[in-house]
Amino acid sequence: MTEADFIVALRNLPLHPGARGLQDDCAVLELGAETFILTHDAMAEGIHFRSNADLADVAWKLVASNLSDLASKGAEPIGILLGYSLGHSLEQGEERFLSGLHEALTEFGTSLLGGDTISSQGPRTFGLTAIGKASHTPVPSRSGAQPGDKVYVTGTLGAAMLGFEGTAEFLAAYNRPTPRIGEGRALAPAATAMMDVSDGLLLDAFRMAQASDVTLAISSDNVPVANADRRDESMRWGDDYELLFTLPADLRPPIEASCIGSVEIKGFAPLMLDDHPLVNRDGLGYQHSQKT
Amino acid sequence: MTEADFIVALRNLPLHPGARGLQDDCAVLELGAETFILTHDAMAEGIHFRSNADLADVAWKLVASNLSDLASKGAEPIGILLGYSLGHSLEQGEERFLSGLHEALTEFGTSLLGGDTISSQGPRTFGLTAIGKASHTPVPSRSGAQPGDKVYVTGTLGAAMLGFEGTAEFLAAYNRPTPRIGEGRALAPAATAMMDVSDGLLLDAFRMAQASDVTLAISSDNVPVANADRRDESMRWGDDYELLFTLPADLRPPIEASCIGSVEIKGFAPLMLDDHPLVNRDGLGYQHSQKT
Repeated sequence: MTEADFIVALRNLPLHPGARGLQDDCAVLELGAETFILTHDAMAEGIHFRSNADLADVAWKLVASNLSDLASKGAEPIGILLGYSLGHSLEQGEERFLSGLHEALTEFGTSLLGGDTISSQGPRTFGLTAIGKASHTPVPSRSGAQPGDKVYVTGTLGAAMLGFEGTAEFLAAYNRPTPRIGEGRALAPAATAMMDVSDGLLLDAFRMAQASDVTLAISSDNVPVANADRRDESMRWGDDYELLFTLPADLRPPIEASCIGSVEIKGFAPLMLDDHPLVNRDGLGYQHSQKT
Repeated sequence: MTEADFIVALRNLPLHPGARGLQDDCAVLELGAETFILTHDAMAEGIHFRSNADLADVAWKLVASNLSDLASKGAEPIGILLGYSLGHSLEQGEERFLSGLHEALTEFGTSLLGGDTISSQGPRTFGLTAIGKASHTPVPSRSGAQPGDKVYVTGTLGAAMLGFEGTAEFLAAYNRPTPRIGEGRALAPAATAMMDVSDGLLLDAFRMAQASDVTLAISSDNVPVANADRRDESMRWGDDYELLFTLPADLRPPIEASCIGSVEIKGFAPLMLDDHPLVNRDGLGYQHSQKT
């Protein structure tokens, strides 16, 4: 069974209505007068982080990537649960992990709710569940983009890629990303669709188009990138944790963002890039992780 | 840094008030008129399950162990988030896992809210977050046992141990445990303290005594065990997922349970077993997992 098959099979399990068919960044749980947002992301050594990575950065990124999912739903973080696997080497990794976790929780104003610490053999796997409270209902989804809307993205893409490669100026973009929590809250009342771009702009735009049953037409020249000579890679590399969203054409975004295209009636391709149809998601992004 | 040191260090992180100091089975989140219960348990290949285990049983147990934590707080399950690591072998494990997950969700009347599926190298690690709704507030804790209370346990201990060893009659007790959800709800309004006994009766009683700042005096002859010739091991082996709870002496439990002792003013030992003081938790149970 391939990873893609596995994801499809998960959708045949008994799903909670708040699971949104496992097609969104988060689960949305409406209970009484409150609406909660839940997400879980895992990171594995050798896949999501290098074996020689500073675990302080890994912990930070684990928190940031989950809070980025909450941000894309306009949620305020409430707290996290940590699944920690003590690794094969007990030397200094744990202290670094705790240090990075402390920094991230403090920076993003959230706190630890609980979790589980286990011993494991071989490479480490860390899991984190974040819970937040919706700041606006209905909670934005991936599936609300409407023909005629404009497509926007926050920040600059490709910075994490340059950081991963070791460019000093961009190390922080890769190691210590900042989830767009405030921006997500500001956008939630207006955005017709919203998600974060953790796996690469083109792949995530493809997913939004499919979820919304529309075509997204993106103009690559309008995509803000850290290095214009590497525009194409920057649109396919992940880890930038920016927000991709759509707004009705008559609205202007309440926060700084770049208009990179428009939403069209569904054509034969979910994505048009500079008038070239992209019909297949292969190669559009970095699928290191399949959010379910 | 040892595992014990790591747990202590986690308590120095910014903790949510609902984390209960990381000293309880679950986090308790009071929001608006609702009270939610959250827990996260992880299981690693080679540590919590054998490499040749049927992953359908592993999935079932992952669900059951988390719902057992909810049960110990009297919560009704709402849903789960799954952190799934695709293993080194993609042969048939995934289908079995999904099958067991489906069975457990159906049996326990809950559903999938979301999660994350990742590839990993080496042994598999699975994480599960369960969220439930409190059926009664205040939510029972480990720390409420009062001198004069009686100590009770549900069911029979040592059955999982016999199942682990391969005794046909007890295979299901090990592979397919049933969380005491209904019992937990019935007990929540009356119990002064409650927890599940996943890591062994004596170890968990020791923890309850420490959390409550009392001494628990247990009479081993009164402990219900699956095989009386192996009483001592049965009290130290985990995985039975029964409920340990205390009640005021004038109350009788509203469900079937065995009275195994009484709560005393804190002496020099947290635990007295047949009048022998147990001052150290070493050897009292199976610490494969440190709930934080």
